Amino acid sequence: MQLLDGKKTAASIREELTLAVKNRKENGQKIPHLAAILVGNDGGSMTYVNAKVKACEEIGFESTLIRYDDTITEEELLRKINELNNDDAIDGFIVQLPLPKHINELKVTQAVDPTKDVDGFHPQNLGNMVLNLPGFLPATPAGIVELLKRNNIETSGKHCVVIGRSNIVGSPVSILLARNTNPGNCTVTLTHSRTKNLTEICQQADIIVAAIGKPGYVKAEMVKEGAVVVDVGTTRVDDPSRERGWRLCGDVDFENVAPKCSFITPVPGGVGPMTIASLMINTLRAVELKGL
Amino acid sequence: MQLLDGKKTAASIREELTLAVKNRKENGQKIPHLAAILVGNDGGSMTYVNAKVKACEEIGFESTLIRYDDTITEEELLRKINELNNDDAIDGFIVQLPLPKHINELKVTQAVDPTKDVDGFHPQNLGNMVLNLPGFLPATPAGIVELLKRNNIETSGKHCVVIGRSNIVGSPVSILLARNTNPGNCTVTLTHSRTKNLTEICQQADIIVAAIGKPGYVKAEMVKEGAVVVDVGTTRVDDPSRERGWRLCGDVDFENVAPKCSFITPVPGGVGPMTIASLMINTLRAVELKGL
Repeated sequence: MQLLDGKKTAASIREELTLAVKNRKENGQKIPHLAAILVGNDGGSMTYVNAKVKACEEIGFESTLIRYDDTITEEELLRKINELNNDDAIDGFIVQLPLPKHINELKVTQAVDPTKDVDGFHPQNLGNMVLNLPGFLPATPAGIVELLKRNNIETSGKHCVVIGRSNIVGSPVSILLARNTNPGNCTVTLTHSRTKNLTEICQQADIIVAAIGKPGYVKAEMVKEGAVVVDVGTTRVDDPSRERGWRLCGDVDFENVAPKCSFITPVPGGVGPMTIASLMINTLRAVELKGL
Repeated sequence: MQLLDGKKTAASIREELTLAVKNRKENGQKIPHLAAILVGNDGGSMTYVNAKVKACEEIGFESTLIRYDDTITEEELLRKINELNNDDAIDGFIVQLPLPKHINELKVTQAVDPTKDVDGFHPQNLGNMVLNLPGFLPATPAGIVELLKRNNIETSGKHCVVIGRSNIVGSPVSILLARNTNPGNCTVTLTHSRTKNLTEICQQADIIVAAIGKPGYVKAEMVKEGAVVVDVGTTRVDDPSRERGWRLCGDVDFENVAPKCSFITPVPGGVGPMTIASLMINTLRAVELKGL
């Protein structure tokens, strides 16, 4: 069993991006500038956004963090999005999800200019992905594919079972891995809450992508010997043994599944860092696509 | 075994639409107007476009057929599309595919205003479909789903295997059937040219959608007893016994597969008429969405 070390892979992507920024500086080109909107005080969201800002700093991107209280109205948020859409200094921006219940996430997603949508959540970018047209790939699915690629894991002709059909991970990663691209060309089965005989289906998988947010859901008996397992879950579970009182828990019963795998991502340190790396790749692309 | 009679189902949809047009007339509302662009003299394309125009006439829609020689440049075609985008009289329009090789089909698809894209090929509409947002569903996939629905075929929790990942059928129908909607909620496996052990995978399917364009490709041994089989193939094969010298042949070896099925679509008379019915439904929606 080998660990699919997202932390290490993301670090080498950051190195490449640092070099790219250095070259841009030398050539007098625009330095990529990412903005992030954070609403409220959710601990997980703050951690993610801070990690994104930190990645920008490390690479040499400019970054702007915009924070709002969770009492912000949808209208105010949409107004800010419109302002960022029209701000030439900002190459790309994200609105950290989840948002408070009184704000429609899909409406927010659609309000972001597709050419600045570095999270790849806008319908235009999802449609471009379906058609294999240029655009921004959704950050987590793209990070998963990049992790497989940089660890020389063959995807062509492999059977990939995706567990969970969320808008931001399960559904788009199922589309991405089935496309006629490299990496890609998987036979993909998309499973979800209505799926019967999930165990039987998973047992056939060469690659499993677990993205349901249920800690330890994927058990050893669901996994074929030699399978590649990608764990997208990041649920906080109580852990009194830790000073902060919790730990991050993936969707996979790591202890029992790992021995059967050829490759498996750890949680944390697997998909998480790759999502941030994808976001950075997309931000550089945003400025490149504008020809700046 | 029961035939999934697309001709009959489409006829009942046309009746409903005829009534809707009558009501619109009585209320002084705009009569839906569909335009179709046909490039060249391909026999299949001419047949399809004629059938679409005929359906409009039967329902009471207005229709405009625009024909070009296959020497038309991409630029001229894009100019015409732009003209239709800006013509308030036209509620929706299609560009019949395939186009001559010197014209980029994806560029043409992207040039159509998404609010007039009644074929549902534009990335914006495909992305809307992924996110379950309002928009135009691609005509053939939507027709397949409508055919299942109107024949009371349960899809929730069923395992659907889609054969072929084309932009206009295989990929979008796999997305549509996996969504959290009714019909929908299938566990979906998308297979294609790189898929290994296709036979084994198909044998597990409760529903098979065959969309590869290879006559008679799906054999009896690939189909589980009691499965629902939807045949999207329409290949012209030589048939000297017919006066016109050819017949339409589906992707399914109908003679040997049909006896094993609970339901199966014939070719012709299955998915084909449903595609046209979907286009008509989308055209009515186009004018409704504009509030006219």
